[in-house]
Amino acid sequence: MAIRYNCLKTDDAARLGRLHTPHGVVETPAFMPVGTVGTVKGIYPFQVEESGSRILLSNTYHLALRPGDERVARLGGLHRFMNWPHAILTDSGGYQVFSLAERRVVTDQGVQFRSHLDGSLIDLTPEKAVQIQENLGSDIAMVLDVCPPAGCPTAEMDEAIRRTLLWAKRCQNAATRVDQALFAIVQGGLDLNARAQCAAELVAMDFPGYALGGFSVGESPESMAQALPACASFLPVEKPRYLMGVGRPQDLIAGMAAGIDMFDCVLPTRNGRNASAYTATGEVRMRNARHRDDPSPLENGCPCPCCTQYSRAYLHHLFAAEEMLGPMLLSLHNLWFYQRIMREARQAIANDCFHTWAGEWLVRLEKTP
Amino acid sequence: MAIRYNCLKTDDAARLGRLHTPHGVVETPAFMPVGTVGTVKGIYPFQVEESGSRILLSNTYHLALRPGDERVARLGGLHRFMNWPHAILTDSGGYQVFSLAERRVVTDQGVQFRSHLDGSLIDLTPEKAVQIQENLGSDIAMVLDVCPPAGCPTAEMDEAIRRTLLWAKRCQNAATRVDQALFAIVQGGLDLNARAQCAAELVAMDFPGYALGGFSVGESPESMAQALPACASFLPVEKPRYLMGVGRPQDLIAGMAAGIDMFDCVLPTRNGRNASAYTATGEVRMRNARHRDDPSPLENGCPCPCCTQYSRAYLHHLFAAEEMLGPMLLSLHNLWFYQRIMREARQAIANDCFHTWAGEWLVRLEKTP
Repeated sequence: MAIRYNCLKTDDAARLGRLHTPHGVVETPAFMPVGTVGTVKGIYPFQVEESGSRILLSNTYHLALRPGDERVARLGGLHRFMNWPHAILTDSGGYQVFSLAERRVVTDQGVQFRSHLDGSLIDLTPEKAVQIQENLGSDIAMVLDVCPPAGCPTAEMDEAIRRTLLWAKRCQNAATRVDQALFAIVQGGLDLNARAQCAAELVAMDFPGYALGGFSVGESPESMAQALPACASFLPVEKPRYLMGVGRPQDLIAGMAAGIDMFDCVLPTRNGRNASAYTATGEVRMRNARHRDDPSPLENGCPCPCCTQYSRAYLHHLFAAEEMLGPMLLSLHNLWFYQRIMREARQAIANDCFHTWAGEWLVRLEKTP
Repeated sequence: MAIRYNCLKTDDAARLGRLHTPHGVVETPAFMPVGTVGTVKGIYPFQVEESGSRILLSNTYHLALRPGDERVARLGGLHRFMNWPHAILTDSGGYQVFSLAERRVVTDQGVQFRSHLDGSLIDLTPEKAVQIQENLGSDIAMVLDVCPPAGCPTAEMDEAIRRTLLWAKRCQNAATRVDQALFAIVQGGLDLNARAQCAAELVAMDFPGYALGGFSVGESPESMAQALPACASFLPVEKPRYLMGVGRPQDLIAGMAAGIDMFDCVLPTRNGRNASAYTATGEVRMRNARHRDDPSPLENGCPCPCCTQYSRAYLHHLFAAEEMLGPMLLSLHNLWFYQRIMREARQAIANDCFHTWAGEWLVRLEKTP
C-alpha cells in the first residue's frame, strides 16, 4: 500500500488522523496548497514547509501540457523537479479539461480537447490520466472523472456518474506504481441519492482513498455545507476523504465538521497576489489607503514572516508600487492563515471542542471589520 | 563621524578596506544591490544578506514621491520600513530627476520637475535633497548634483560642474544628522581636467566620502575604464570612493582596478527578472529551449539557493509558464554572482594577485558560450 490512513480520534463527525505517504506523514485534517504548474505561486518550497504544509496539490492537466509529464519523469519526477520533499497529490486533469479546454468532446472512451496553450488536439483517457500521473510520480493520484456544472439536468448528471464509475474502474486497472495511491472521485452534485449510489459503487471497488468532486462548481456554499455530512457518511471510515477544490476558511470548517480530511484551494495564494489578506477579524484589502500610515502588522499576533517583520504601511506601499514582494508576502501570510486554521482544528478535535472552536471561527469569518 | 573607512591593504591601485557605518561594517570593495522603492525586487531581505550584501542602495527620488520620506520617517526610517538591518546608501534623486522626470527646469536654486507618477510639480533643492535623505535615515546620503549626458557640449558640462559644486556646499551646510554621512559627487564626464578640478574643489570641502557620477550615462565602457584610474586618483586615499550606477561585472573589475570601493547597479536583478543569468562561463538565457531537458544547475559549483536546489529544466519551465519563482530565483543567483565577484576580488587584493585574478575573469566574461 502506497499510503496508510489512521484515524486517531473523532469529535462528532470531525476526524483527527494521520496519512502516511511515501514522502512523509501528513496530519489530518490537512490543507494542500496548490502548485498548479509545479510551484506554489510566489512561495519558496521551504516557506510552504514552514507554513505547516506537508502535502501540496499539482495539476496534471497543466503539467502534461507544459513541461510535459514524460519530461518531468526523465528529470526525476515532480518532487525533485520542484524541490518539494513532502507529499504531492495530483488531480487527474478532468476538472481542468471541463473548465479550461476548448472544443471538448466526451465519449465513453475518454475526452478529446484542444490545449488552452497552443490549440493542439489532445486525447485524455482514464488510462492516459493514470500514466501521466505515474510519470509525475505523485504520492496520490486521482481517477479521471466527469465533473458537470452545478444544476445540470438529471440526464447529464446520470451520464457523468456513469462515465465517472466506468473510468474509475479503468484507472484502477491501469495503475501500476506501488508507491502511488489512486483515489476515486464521487460525483452527483447536490442529489444525495445520486451521491450515495456513486459512492457505493466506488467503495465496492476498494480504493485507498475517496474524494468528493463536483463541489464548488457554482452551487451556494450553504447547499454544499448541507450536503457534505451525508456525502461524507457514504465513504468508508477507514479511508481518507478529500473535498476537491474547496475552499474558503468557512468551507474548510464545514468540511471538517462533516468528517473531511483533505482540502485544496487556490484562494490563499490567489487572494494574496491580489492584495487581499485573511485575518481572524476578517479580510484586509492591502491596497486600501487606510493602511498607508499604519505601523501595525497585517495581523496582530500572527507568527508568519510577513506579520513579524513588516508593517501594513510597507505592505500597502509594495502593492502601490507593484513590487513583487507584496504578492510574495501576502500569499505567504494567507497560507500561514490557512494552516493555522487546520492546526487549530486538529487541536480542537483532540480536545473534544471542535464545535465550539468552529462556531467561534465562523462568527469571526462572517463579520468584516 | 557617521562612518569610518579603513584601507587595510592595496594591490597596485586596488584597495581592500572596511567601511564602518551606524548599521555595521561593510567589507570593500562592496557591491550594493538596488532597492529602488525600498525592496530589492523579488528578493527577501534575509536573502540579500545571505548573498553577502551588507549595504544596499535606495532611490531618494522614488521614495520621496511614494510612499513619501516624511511617512517613512514617521514609520521609523527606511531600515525599519523595509526590514533591512544593515547599511543603506540613498542617492540624492539628482540622477533620476535628469533621467525620469518630465518638464525639468534647472536653475542655481535647484530643479523643478513633474513627477513621473502623477505629473505633480516638485521643487528639489540641495537643502530639500538632504532633508529627504535625513527623513529616510540612510547611513550614507548623496549630495544633489547635476548629471549631464555623455558627450554634452563643454558649456553644458561647465555649468553642470559649477552647479554640482555650489549644491555640494549647500548640501553640506544643510546636513544635520550625526548618524548620516554625506558623500560628494564628482562630475566632468570624460574630461580629465574637468574631473580633476571638480574633485579638487570637493576635496577642499572635506566630505567623508566621494563618488564618481556621470559614468554609465552613454559613453563606451572602454572610455569609462580608461578614465577611471585618473578620476580615482583625484580622490583622497583615506576616504571611500563610490562609482555610481556601475555596472556590468567587467565594469566593476575595471573600477576595482582603479581603486574604487563601492558600486551599485540594477543589472543583477533586472537581468534576472528577464531570464538572463550571469555565470563564470558567460550569460545564460533561461528562456532558450536548449535548457528544456537539462537536469544540471544553472551554474555548476555555485553555492546559491537557485543552483543548489533547481535544474535548468525547471528554471526554463518557470519562465515559460511565467511563474514568479523564475524571476525570484534568477535575481537571487545573479546577486550571488555579483557578490562572489566582490568576495573573490577582496581575496585577490589580500593575496596580492588582483591583476591576475582580474585578467582571468575578464577573459571569461568576454567569451559567450
